[in-house]
Amino acid sequence: MRIRNIKNADKLIYDSPYIIENPYQYRGNFQKEVFKNTNPIHLEIGMGKGNFIIDMAMKNPNINFIGVEKYSSITLRALRKLKNIDLPNLRIINVDALELAKIFYQEISTIYLNFSDPWPKKRHHKRRLTYETFLKIYDVICKENIIIQKTDNIPLFESSIVYLSTYGYQIVDISLDLWNSNRVTSQTEYESKFRKQGIKINYLKAIKK
Amino acid sequence: MRIRNIKNADKLIYDSPYIIENPYQYRGNFQKEVFKNTNPIHLEIGMGKGNFIIDMAMKNPNINFIGVEKYSSITLRALRKLKNIDLPNLRIINVDALELAKIFYQEISTIYLNFSDPWPKKRHHKRRLTYETFLKIYDVICKENIIIQKTDNIPLFESSIVYLSTYGYQIVDISLDLWNSNRVTSQTEYESKFRKQGIKINYLKAIKK
Repeated sequence: MRIRNIKNADKLIYDSPYIIENPYQYRGNFQKEVFKNTNPIHLEIGMGKGNFIIDMAMKNPNINFIGVEKYSSITLRALRKLKNIDLPNLRIINVDALELAKIFYQEISTIYLNFSDPWPKKRHHKRRLTYETFLKIYDVICKENIIIQKTDNIPLFESSIVYLSTYGYQIVDISLDLWNSNRVTSQTEYESKFRKQGIKINYLKAIKK
Repeated sequence: MRIRNIKNADKLIYDSPYIIENPYQYRGNFQKEVFKNTNPIHLEIGMGKGNFIIDMAMKNPNINFIGVEKYSSITLRALRKLKNIDLPNLRIINVDALELAKIFYQEISTIYLNFSDPWPKKRHHKRRLTYETFLKIYDVICKENIIIQKTDNIPLFESSIVYLSTYGYQIVDISLDLWNSNRVTSQTEYESKFRKQGIKINYLKAIKK
C-alpha cells in the first residue's frame, strides 16, 4: 500500500480507545486483562485501513479481534473509521509483526493474512508472513494454529502452500477463485478493488495440530 | 478422453512386448523379475495414448516406467506408438487403478497423475485418483510416496491439495501456471492441446514421509 504520511500519527493514534499503547504488558493475559472474557482471539497481521477486521468484529461479537499494523499513518486511518463505533471485541496494535512473540503467548486462535506484501525478490522471501521465520513466531503466540490467507498474488500463494505444508500445516480448505466459490468472507480494501477489476483472489485455510 | 472402440483390442494388446499380460504374478518383485535391475519404478496412472510416459522413458533410461491404462482401445493406441521403439525401461499394464494394490507391493517410487478424470459430481468424488480411497492404495504399492499431479481442472486441483495435505502429504512444489514457470516436464496429449489454447496447467509435487 502507498503510505500517505500523516504528521504526528505516532502520537495521534494513542487518542483512540481501540489502540493498546503498551501491548507487551499483557503477554499471555489478553483475554482476561484486555477483553475481560474467555472468547477466542483472532489476529489480523497487516490490517491496513481496517475494513476486514472492523467488519469481522461487527459480525462476530463472540470473538475478540486484534488488528496489527506496522505503519502509524495507516493505523490512524483505521482508528478514524472507528471514531463513532463501539466494538468492545476489537483492539489495534501498532507494531511490526516481528515483535509478536514478545507480545502474545499461546493465546491466539486464528491468524488472518490478507493481501500481505508478496516480497517478489528471492532475497526478500524470508520477510513473507508465511515464511518459516514467521511460522515460528505463530507457534509461540498461538493456542490453536489456524492461518487464513487471501491474496491475488500467485507466487506468494504458491510459496505459502509449500511453506505451510512443509512446516506441518494441513491445507484444509482452498480456493483459486474465492469470489466464484460459495465462501462468505469480510472484504479488505484491496479485495473490493480487485473484485471490480475481475482479479481472482486465492484463499486458503491451514491448520497445524 | 472419448474412447474410439477398437475391435478385439482386448486381445490385440497382447501382441506387444511392452504389455505385461499377468502383472499380478510379479507383486513385490517388479524390479528383479520384470526389469532385471534395481532402478526405481515410476507409475503413470491413466497414461492415455502414452505420450508422457514414452517421452519420460526415453529421457530417463535409469528409471523404470510402468503405464497403467484401464481401456484396452486406448492401451492399444499407446502400444502402436511403441512398435518400432526399443525401451527396456518401459512396460504397460491394462487394468483399473483399483486393482493396483493387488499388483504392486512397496516397490513404486513416484506416481504421475496427468489430467485425471475430475469427476465433478460430489457423489463421484471418491473416484478421483487423489481421493483417500486411492491414497490408501498408494500406501500399499509405494516404497516412497511421491505424487506428481498435472491438471487443467481447478476443482480437482483444489480438492487434491486438501485430500493430500490432510492425509499426511507435504506439498513440496506447486505451480498454478506450469507453462509460465521454469519447470520442464514431458507433455501429455491433453497438455499439448491445452497449451495451444492458452489454458493454464496446475502442477503439484507431494511427498508423504
